[in-house]
Amino acid sequence: MSHVHMTLPEAHSLALTVLSANGLDETNARAVADRMIQAEADICHSHGLFRLPWYVSGVTSGRVNGQAKPKVDQLAPAVIRVDGDNGYAPLAQRIAHKPLVECARKNGIAALAITNMYHIAAMWPEVEALADDGLCAIAVTAAYPYVAPAGGLKALFGTNPMGFAWPRKGQPPMVFDQASSSMARGEIMIAARDGHNVPETAGIGPNGEATTDPNVVLAGAQLGFGGYKGASLAMMIELLAGPLIGQFLSLESAQDDAGRGGPPKGGELIIALDPAKFGDAHGFLDHGEKLFAAVLSQEGTRLPGVRRFESRKQTLTEGIHVPKSLHQDILALIP
Amino acid sequence: MSHVHMTLPEAHSLALTVLSANGLDETNARAVADRMIQAEADICHSHGLFRLPWYVSGVTSGRVNGQAKPKVDQLAPAVIRVDGDNGYAPLAQRIAHKPLVECARKNGIAALAITNMYHIAAMWPEVEALADDGLCAIAVTAAYPYVAPAGGLKALFGTNPMGFAWPRKGQPPMVFDQASSSMARGEIMIAARDGHNVPETAGIGPNGEATTDPNVVLAGAQLGFGGYKGASLAMMIELLAGPLIGQFLSLESAQDDAGRGGPPKGGELIIALDPAKFGDAHGFLDHGEKLFAAVLSQEGTRLPGVRRFESRKQTLTEGIHVPKSLHQDILALIP
Repeated sequence: MSHVHMTLPEAHSLALTVLSANGLDETNARAVADRMIQAEADICHSHGLFRLPWYVSGVTSGRVNGQAKPKVDQLAPAVIRVDGDNGYAPLAQRIAHKPLVECARKNGIAALAITNMYHIAAMWPEVEALADDGLCAIAVTAAYPYVAPAGGLKALFGTNPMGFAWPRKGQPPMVFDQASSSMARGEIMIAARDGHNVPETAGIGPNGEATTDPNVVLAGAQLGFGGYKGASLAMMIELLAGPLIGQFLSLESAQDDAGRGGPPKGGELIIALDPAKFGDAHGFLDHGEKLFAAVLSQEGTRLPGVRRFESRKQTLTEGIHVPKSLHQDILALIP
Repeated sequence: MSHVHMTLPEAHSLALTVLSANGLDETNARAVADRMIQAEADICHSHGLFRLPWYVSGVTSGRVNGQAKPKVDQLAPAVIRVDGDNGYAPLAQRIAHKPLVECARKNGIAALAITNMYHIAAMWPEVEALADDGLCAIAVTAAYPYVAPAGGLKALFGTNPMGFAWPRKGQPPMVFDQASSSMARGEIMIAARDGHNVPETAGIGPNGEATTDPNVVLAGAQLGFGGYKGASLAMMIELLAGPLIGQFLSLESAQDDAGRGGPPKGGELIIALDPAKFGDAHGFLDHGEKLFAAVLSQEGTRLPGVRRFESRKQTLTEGIHVPKSLHQDILALIP
């Protein structure tokens, strides 16, 4: 596959141009472009420019609001809601960041419900940003029905990721972001495209049959990681990102999309904790480092998220490589 | 194995007698006995009378405070701490329950740090009690080093369980309580006792070798469920139940025990959310039921925790069966 080399600012400028030319106002376009290029910088292509044509069609189809004006409400002393006004998630997340940080610092713990927005992508950017402000953060969201419940054979839960971040001393935060499913859906799609098998733990076929064929899994149901325990986590996340905050279940999100294949509409719950308010304000950072040192003293380990920080350094100087076909598709979106 | 049949009140009375005769005051003895018989009622023997001799020796050895007077502090508007005064967990949990409920109702979300106490056992009783009061709850705790970090070969994290409860409409709450490890340590110990193999996913030997021999796993390290993802969860829980609240890491707890094999000292974090304060006060219960109905519409599924509720009905009328050898060991603890 041939590629087009770009610096990060060039890629950002391109994304901004394309989004602005397709119905997103400056504020919305910038929030989406920032997030997309952040993923490119971290060499996480599935959340990067790859998504741009899909994001554009969400707006040009009239479904997603490119002029969204997210609005922040205080629902309780330690609960904030930001209504996304049917736009894409990054603007709502950006607007809610500071109020959430202040609320968590004041109360020790705070929750943010993000509602009425489209396509929560990767979750590490929002939890990492909270840890950059010294907080510990947990974020969850649902999606479309992809994962079977424990004991069941039909897709019902989203791949329902959980992001977690812990602030570190003189280092970028420890951050992970993992789906409740055994494999990310994108990985299964890539295996299908490239003609590779997937492990039997990835999923089952439409009749519940065991399979290693990614196409059969995509037509059937994914499985939770570690079997029933991952499925339990997926259910927990479905409750927290759906009924708790009055947003869609994955199955409702799919009904709302009605087969159009657009970005899922739904909610996200973020819980932020201020470790300085939990009784060991002066010790918690060193104490966390003691755990990380014990992990890293074992050969073969590394902390989650480290690869992203390494990628970020690399792309800052070396730029990124965008597949030529994708680059052409993107250019075609500029009138 | 021959058994002794007892009613639940008989078993409770026995536990209370034994604990009271071995250094626990009335309040502490009652809290521990209540919790132990609650586990027996749910037919979860590994948290029931089986633990009684071990609990007794913790106190008679002078390590655990049988006269503990747990003390509640408000650390921040939405953060409560209960210092367990080096006693067993159930009394601290009991004392902190009402303040946590009130704090969560007032603020929408609240956290409880339980500190300086011994042996958090099963976590479902505390999260179930919170859901009985209409809250959604998450609880986590660490233990001794049993589980290898992702990519590593040596035990470092506890089996680090997470308990979760969601209130239901006209039904007992949906509750799960699952270790971050692939298998519960007790299950591996039982396999060793009975001469059964365990799956290769359960753990590795002392040199990192693959094995299905439970004794080799017990001498080596358990693995997280679903591999690295379970290990990431174990690390998250280790941070939340340790550094966040200024309590022991699993490795520190083992150092503190210094090979005596006593109950682990450590902390627990409980997060309680009041769904009535998250924007859908009148809809969240029905919305949750919609999800559960979708799960249960699939053949082969059931909700987590249902077996416990069934057991509870059964033992209420039928009583329990205590292994004769355990019963004799327990009687021998009465002077």
